[in-house]
Amino acid sequence: MSDPRAAAIQYAHDHQDRFLEELKEFATIPSISTDPAAVPDMQRAAEWVAAQLHALGLEHVQVYATNRHPVVYGDWLKAGAKAPTALIYGHYDVQPADPLELWTSGPFEPTVRGENIYARGITDMKGQVLASIKAIEAIVRTSSLPVNVKFLIEGEEEIGSPSLVPFMHEHKDLLACDFAVNPDTGMLSPDLPTITYALRGLAYFELRVHGPDHDLHSGVFGGAILNPAQALCELIAGMHDAQGHITLPGFYDSVRPIEAEERAELARLPITDEFFLRNTGAPALYGEAGYTPIEHVGARPTLEVNGLLSGFTGEGAKTVLPAWAMAKISCRLVPDQDPEEVHQQMLKYLEAHAPKTIRWTLAKHTGGPASISDRKSAYVQALSQAMETVWGKRPVFKREGGSVPVVTQFQQILGVESVNTGFGLPDDNMHSPNEKMHLPTWRRGIDALIHFFFNLAQ
Amino acid sequence: MSDPRAAAIQYAHDHQDRFLEELKEFATIPSISTDPAAVPDMQRAAEWVAAQLHALGLEHVQVYATNRHPVVYGDWLKAGAKAPTALIYGHYDVQPADPLELWTSGPFEPTVRGENIYARGITDMKGQVLASIKAIEAIVRTSSLPVNVKFLIEGEEEIGSPSLVPFMHEHKDLLACDFAVNPDTGMLSPDLPTITYALRGLAYFELRVHGPDHDLHSGVFGGAILNPAQALCELIAGMHDAQGHITLPGFYDSVRPIEAEERAELARLPITDEFFLRNTGAPALYGEAGYTPIEHVGARPTLEVNGLLSGFTGEGAKTVLPAWAMAKISCRLVPDQDPEEVHQQMLKYLEAHAPKTIRWTLAKHTGGPASISDRKSAYVQALSQAMETVWGKRPVFKREGGSVPVVTQFQQILGVESVNTGFGLPDDNMHSPNEKMHLPTWRRGIDALIHFFFNLAQ
Repeated sequence: MSDPRAAAIQYAHDHQDRFLEELKEFATIPSISTDPAAVPDMQRAAEWVAAQLHALGLEHVQVYATNRHPVVYGDWLKAGAKAPTALIYGHYDVQPADPLELWTSGPFEPTVRGENIYARGITDMKGQVLASIKAIEAIVRTSSLPVNVKFLIEGEEEIGSPSLVPFMHEHKDLLACDFAVNPDTGMLSPDLPTITYALRGLAYFELRVHGPDHDLHSGVFGGAILNPAQALCELIAGMHDAQGHITLPGFYDSVRPIEAEERAELARLPITDEFFLRNTGAPALYGEAGYTPIEHVGARPTLEVNGLLSGFTGEGAKTVLPAWAMAKISCRLVPDQDPEEVHQQMLKYLEAHAPKTIRWTLAKHTGGPASISDRKSAYVQALSQAMETVWGKRPVFKREGGSVPVVTQFQQILGVESVNTGFGLPDDNMHSPNEKMHLPTWRRGIDALIHFFFNLAQ
Repeated sequence: MSDPRAAAIQYAHDHQDRFLEELKEFATIPSISTDPAAVPDMQRAAEWVAAQLHALGLEHVQVYATNRHPVVYGDWLKAGAKAPTALIYGHYDVQPADPLELWTSGPFEPTVRGENIYARGITDMKGQVLASIKAIEAIVRTSSLPVNVKFLIEGEEEIGSPSLVPFMHEHKDLLACDFAVNPDTGMLSPDLPTITYALRGLAYFELRVHGPDHDLHSGVFGGAILNPAQALCELIAGMHDAQGHITLPGFYDSVRPIEAEERAELARLPITDEFFLRNTGAPALYGEAGYTPIEHVGARPTLEVNGLLSGFTGEGAKTVLPAWAMAKISCRLVPDQDPEEVHQQMLKYLEAHAPKTIRWTLAKHTGGPASISDRKSAYVQALSQAMETVWGKRPVFKREGGSVPVVTQFQQILGVESVNTGFGLPDDNMHSPNEKMHLPTWRRGIDALIHFFFNLAQ
């Protein structure tokens, strides 16, 4: 370990009490992005972050107004053209705090109990944002940054980041970088450093089946007219075969197979069947034949029915033959599936299987491709080594079943991959009352980020 | 034609203008059973009917109070023990009249335009009730009734007859009869006298499929947990085979086959494919292989999805893996299916086909068996001959796809079959604005009922 590195780590340890006080200060600001009454707090939180960046000696620190909540930017680009440039992402907004009565201490009165600190947004993601800032502080106060950094801290993550895509398009040059760091994904347990290297994409549809042009009396016409709800169910039932494979034509053609080495890596994850059963309450697990649950949720595409609606759904009985039936259907995608290709596959399936006794329409909603990072890239390896240094064990590599839109947007707009990490834990009550963060893990996270930045320069 | 018969017909013709005036009087009473403000009008309508029965010289005329709207009863039993006793059913209540702005003349200002009279309830079924009364009047004023008659005129048909079943149980002896006459079913066209000899029954279920114990994020868990909406669709899809047969185990075991002669009779009905297409707006007809549309809706059982509900059904996209999915499913039954047997068949189907990865519950709603009358019975033949006499052609025999609860109740509580007829037409706008009745058909109906009562005594 080089001297500057040791010095930065020492600085972080020496100042950990102050770091905690500053975290508490940040967490007292009720920056609830969805709350129209919180606009002044949103501004205050953005300025609080900007002041932190200023204090680091960053340049071009600016609070950019958007149509809704400000974006905070700041950079330090003096490591030279040969050093990599990291774009550090974060968000300063938080989820609403209700139901308030379920909180042990006030959601905006950050309170330490045992090894945890409790407050709304503490793990998602004010703690993570401050971990990045404090890692940089520890380096710049003791030596000098070996890499170029740009901070991009938005205020709309919890409401779908409506302003971020236009902001990225407008400031493409400002945001130019070699890779992004997104500490908004977490760890599996306090002793299991985790790198999330893949996120699934999404293709979302609304299928409507139309039968008669008005609701019919099921006695008068039932038997001579195909029931559109029945037709919808038959179409949906045909979308999976008995082995749980999806039957849309060509659906698996561009699905990247999971390599043996990756399967072995995924098998290391300490996520058991029991984990899935406990967290879902389902009576038994299900899944595409030939894959493990971890692979089902991370590395294989799915087709889910997200909603169904037709006819009479109130109390009791009504003998209606409904005019139409609707399903929301979405596919989680994996590399290298393309949402538009999946749309075409869905259309082909419907053209082939929909009977002539009904009409149908298919609408396309939000979607985006999956993302996957090269686990062998220098950036990922720099983080992996940093975590191994701090925790004394190699991190696990995890595929995440959901989408993190900003990762896809960085890929699509800025053309860069993200290193996805973070120091939150599964039991942190993200989006729930009594949100918490585990302080020893947070402190190890700051150390790991310090090592990460030094590793990047090697 | 015997002299008393000719005299009664002549009387009916001579008094047709007064009959029409009395019909108008009856139709001015806004006896909307569902309207709490109409309680005095309901009483007035019941008393108007009772006064008509009194005027016929009937005995035991009484307006019976119930929990809601009165039942009117009256009888004439002097034809002797050897003559049959007919229970003439009717209802004096009507549907609400709104939307009022769509009526050409006021719904309770009966107005003759051309060959039709327009008013709410005129065809459903004040005109039919008065046709029965006026047929009896024509006979008793000119000779004497050759049969015993009992009138049972209720005021709750349009709200599901909640008081009628208890009334029938309480007055079983009073209502004892050889058969019932229900003129609440109609004719297919003015020149096509129609006898409805079969009504389908009903078994109605609510199927719920439960997967996880709470809504899940489809990204985090999708692929490892069976989606209950998918499971529900697969269960429903399996309930029909590719030929449109229903696959519940034993479902067809007690279905009475349609005899060749009956099929020939049904084929006489002037109801074309085009009729079904025009009246439903469906793009094409559907149905169990091997049967005609008329047979599909009248003589074969069905399984319909009446409602579907699961997960997210609002605007846009939500990536939920829903905790549960629900379907309302009902079977129209034909003789000799039993609703409870069908319930057991549905349970067996679900036990055999529901996967272990979900839980399910099946609730049973309203239901009742089908009913069918012997087309060769003396009562049906008496009506058939009467119609042939008046219209100069043999009536068509029709199976009705829906249920008429009172027919089943007469069968179950009083142990008698119903002769189902009536002089309403398909374009009478029953339950819609500008409800009408075709006066020439109504007058032929009175004649036919006169012949019917004489035929019964032969």
